[in-house]
Amino acid sequence: MNLITFLSTVITLKRIPRSGWITHGVSLSDVESVADHTFSTCAISLLLTDLERKRGVRVNAEQVLRMATLHDLAEALTFDISKSYLSYLGERGSALKHEIEHSAWKNIAGSLGSASLSDGYTRSQRQYKRNVTVEAQIVHAADSIDILLQILELRRRGYPSYLVKDLWNETVKKVRDTPVRSAKHLLRTVTRRGRKAALYSIK
Amino acid sequence: MNLITFLSTVITLKRIPRSGWITHGVSLSDVESVADHTFSTCAISLLLTDLERKRGVRVNAEQVLRMATLHDLAEALTFDISKSYLSYLGERGSALKHEIEHSAWKNIAGSLGSASLSDGYTRSQRQYKRNVTVEAQIVHAADSIDILLQILELRRRGYPSYLVKDLWNETVKKVRDTPVRSAKHLLRTVTRRGRKAALYSIK
Amino acid sequence: MNLITFLSTVITLKRIPRSGWITHGVSLSDVESVADHTFSTCAISLLLTDLERKRGVRVNAEQVLRMATLHDLAEALTFDISKSYLSYLGERGSALKHEIEHSAWKNIAGSLGSASLSDGYTRSQRQYKRNVTVEAQIVHAADSIDILLQILELRRRGYPSYLVKDLWNETVKKVRDTPVRSAKHLLRTVTRRGRKAALYSIK
Amino acid sequence: MNLITFLSTVITLKRIPRSGWITHGVSLSDVESVADHTFSTCAISLLLTDLERKRGVRVNAEQVLRMATLHDLAEALTFDISKSYLSYLGERGSALKHEIEHSAWKNIAGSLGSASLSDGYTRSQRQYKRNVTVEAQIVHAADSIDILLQILELRRRGYPSYLVKDLWNETVKKVRDTPVRSAKHLLRTVTRRGRKAALYSIK
Amino acid sequence: MNLITFLSTVITLKRIPRSGWITHGVSLSDVESVADHTFSTCAISLLLTDLERKRGVRVNAEQVLRMATLHDLAEALTFDISKSYLSYLGERGSALKHEIEHSAWKNIAGSLGSASLSDGYTRSQRQYKRNVTVEAQIVHAADSIDILLQILELRRRGYPSYLVKDLWNETVKKVRDTPVRSAKHLLRTVTRRGRKAALYSIK
Amino acid sequence: MNLITFLSTVITLKRIPRSGWITHGVSLSDVESVADHTFSTCAISLLLTDLERKRGVRVNAEQVLRMATLHDLAEALTFDISKSYLSYLGERGSALKHEIEHSAWKNIAGSLGSASLSDGYTRSQRQYKRNVTVEAQIVHAADSIDILLQILELRRRGYPSYLVKDLWNETVKKVRDTPVRSAKHLLRTVTRRGRKAALYSIK
Repeated sequence: MNLITFLSTVITLKRIPRSGWITHGVSLSDVESVADHTFSTCAISLLLTDLERKRGVRVNAEQVLRMATLHDLAEALTFDISKSYLSYLGERGSALKHEIEHSAWKNIAGSLGSASLSDGYTRSQRQYKRNVTVEAQIVHAADSIDILLQILELRRRGYPSYLVKDLWNETVKKVRDTPVRSAKHLLRTVTRRGRKAALYSIK
Repeated sequence: MNLITFLSTVITLKRIPRSGWITHGVSLSDVESVADHTFSTCAISLLLTDLERKRGVRVNAEQVLRMATLHDLAEALTFDISKSYLSYLGERGSALKHEIEHSAWKNIAGSLGSASLSDGYTRSQRQYKRNVTVEAQIVHAADSIDILLQILELRRRGYPSYLVKDLWNETVKKVRDTPVRSAKHLLRTVTRRGRKAALYSIK
Repeated sequence: MNLITFLSTVITLKRIPRSGWITHGVSLSDVESVADHTFSTCAISLLLTDLERKRGVRVNAEQVLRMATLHDLAEALTFDISKSYLSYLGERGSALKHEIEHSAWKNIAGSLGSASLSDGYTRSQRQYKRNVTVEAQIVHAADSIDILLQILELRRRGYPSYLVKDLWNETVKKVRDTPVRSAKHLLRTVTRRGRKAALYSIK
Repeated sequence: MNLITFLSTVITLKRIPRSGWITHGVSLSDVESVADHTFSTCAISLLLTDLERKRGVRVNAEQVLRMATLHDLAEALTFDISKSYLSYLGERGSALKHEIEHSAWKNIAGSLGSASLSDGYTRSQRQYKRNVTVEAQIVHAADSIDILLQILELRRRGYPSYLVKDLWNETVKKVRDTPVRSAKHLLRTVTRRGRKAALYSIK
Repeated sequence: MNLITFLSTVITLKRIPRSGWITHGVSLSDVESVADHTFSTCAISLLLTDLERKRGVRVNAEQVLRMATLHDLAEALTFDISKSYLSYLGERGSALKHEIEHSAWKNIAGSLGSASLSDGYTRSQRQYKRNVTVEAQIVHAADSIDILLQILELRRRGYPSYLVKDLWNETVKKVRDTPVRSAKHLLRTVTRRGRKAALYSIK
Repeated sequence: MNLITFLSTVITLKRIPRSGWITHGVSLSDVESVADHTFSTCAISLLLTDLERKRGVRVNAEQVLRMATLHDLAEALTFDISKSYLSYLGERGSALKHEIEHSAWKNIAGSLGSASLSDGYTRSQRQYKRNVTVEAQIVHAADSIDILLQILELRRRGYPSYLVKDLWNETVKKVRDTPVRSAKHLLRTVTRRGRKAALYSIK
């Protein structure tokens, strides 16, 4: 049993930059770590879980928080694989990303030295990727809302709107399409904030 | 209902440095964010929960992950209050830290705009502070193990052992005193890694 | 006599970020050190002293420069205590900040190992806090003018005006209320520069 | 013809971190850019070319410098693909890396809007990858020597030898196996420097 | 023969900031290294060479790439000498910059331990400074185009146009005055990009 | 009268790196600003003044603090001119540095728009450069002690002793040769701290 591998994986995420932002032109000193993003996804997932429950939806909070915590863990090994370069492979691109991350994930899970733990974590990861259960949908929505909030942060540091406009629109669309109702509610809160200060206006 | 306040609080943690490390002589560019630390605490808490369950202990994973996610949220408002300066106030120091964080917390919880959410989050925070339930003890142990792993990171970047020696010993002691058995198991894994590479030796 | 404590305190200020800027949304890599700010306060205090003397006001330059050099020294121990979080304590907040800084200060002064030095530095610190003598008022005005200049710096790096607008207005007001006439003169110079470049316009 | 795409690709390399160093535990603020590395490879390639010529070897310097300048250009699109994660794909890993980079390269070359330019750059890239001509071997050797020099830099900043030991040994081996005689000469210079200062000793 | 000196010089450029940007008000964390700039100059020089050849101009690509690679090497010793401060010396300023860089260059060339290498590199450097051959003019134009592209980068990170306006205009003028036709063609591409996004508009 | 020039000069020092450290191999993210260094020189000068007075020496504290505050102001225009490159000019090197800084200084003083202020500041600067009065000697000693303390800081961040050994020895020698007795006393405090922790040992 070599739990040090799992622990190192966790710690490494503090040092891995979310490379997507570099592609969008953000200066390296303004790029968040994957750990930063994961924390935010956990917190927003928790909020969404509680808002959904208030609306009467049954949500398994343990499953939500497991998925949120683990959802980008493989990036400690694969880094934050930029979607842009996989696009050079055409259709095969996303299949490939999936395969690379899956191999990395098996490696991490394998290091847990326990079939039951390993299976549990892999199941959680698969549930997230399939994005069918309400719990997985909550984490996906939280992941998107974190991106929107981070865009507002970058705007606040002076990055011009045209740099992040496409990502903003595409991410807003994702949240609009989610079946998680509270996420749409949060979205309105976030976009209203955007419109309020003219500087936020993402045209 | 002003959920934007809660969301801003979450996002802000990505920018708040864990100031304790500065006190220990770490260069600002090597200091992790509070969000980095919180993510790691979540992941280690999850691992400890699963290890405890394997040992037959009943653990409410939802409670554990709620506490881990929220445990340092107030620092978005109060920053990472260094224990060292409160020491200048003698006995009143920790009472004061508690009071400041409690006020900040009430402010955050209040912004949720819903008594049920607000009460739930406050209850979670209180459970963590009291440190009586096994769930709270797991989060405290995870918080400590993250500190040990971060010390190993700093050693790996060349920081000399005498800089972090006292913090290492004091944190090891905390984990030794925890009733969470798996945490002691993890501790052995971590300290063994320390001893292996002579460079890690924290004398 | 342990002068190394005093020297370490001095050196530490180079690594302590002015945390107030983080609260205003500034990226950590754009936050100045407390030492940066203190140097600027010294230089502006010196200029104000000479301008006041030209106007015929008697100013003790030694006292001014002592106060300017020492005015934030306690922050090596307490860090830059954010006013925002003390506000959660209501009225008690500023009394508390005062008390914490006073204890830290006693600790530093005590380390000088000489009653006469220690008393002198403490008297200087007290004179600054009371803000009654013209010398103390000069340092306070210099401290404010440095904040205004730093805001212009941030504007020049692209930070939007709404981020720093309240701080700008509140600091301008402070300088307007000072009895130090040359400070008002400097203020006009600074705000004119602000208006000139439309980009500086702090609306 | 859209030469702005080519120019943007060039400029972007200044912002792309050499992610391999992150995998080796290097702090993000100590990681060089891909542009930094490419410049160094150009300069060392030039030196090797001149040393080889002095030995009587015929070298096409233009080809060498073309290859050196362009050899990592595709990383502006693909980032610095870490070998470590491709290893999770087993044998297919390096084939894949090759394929991804090839697609990215076609994209860049295509943007030159001129068949002759595009063909020339692609031929240059292919020559580098095949590593058969003396010109290609010089650039490969220069690429390796830059890695060794960068390891010495990291040692000089305090990174412990065990962090970079495997990479050092593996890279030394690569240079030993090169048919470029002057590279072996440079290698001796570099390793002697390593041995001299006990701190450099890469055990 | 002490080639380690030459190699150290090369590696050092990765750590030397282009100090001119600091003078223009750019934050240190946004300043590129001299190595970053040199790589970009190499790549743009290569492109210009190929475009000129397509137009039927005879260009010695080896000479171009040699000059581009070596053109700022002396800055490892002299740092990036800001033109602004030499202006305090009036007419003597640029003569002085030339002299300082020449001495530094002799030092570097001397360390090559071979008269033929040393002479070759010095000849290349002199050719660049004289700026008479088409090869030298290509490198000068590439150096200027890199500055324009870097200004666009800074605009993209939120730096206001007035900060970089004078440098932009003066550099555009330089490229307009070059006899290298393709450089003017590239210039149009770059300025068009500037006009397109209103944010780029360098007024 | 254009005091904004003087104020801008002051603020700029916060962004100018002490380039000497880069020459010694220090990573840019670990290099202090000139403002950081100046603050520290002010504080140590103040301490030395008070220690000398306790010994019965008459010291004009105003003069000391004026010189300390202003001593590196010209570097806002000239940057921190590295001694190393002036050495390429042989004997003329330091004369030149003097001349460049003098011209820059005249420029700053001239911007004060008042002959009396301008003369006063220039006299202060000249007194510092001549290094004859006890006040000037105190500032020179403080400047050196700050360098020693900064070396200890770098050692604490893992930089190996051989990197800074020559600078350490040469600076220790300077302080040993000063007629300021308290500076020698402080020196012993600093070197004792160095010897205590084996890691500090500057061999």
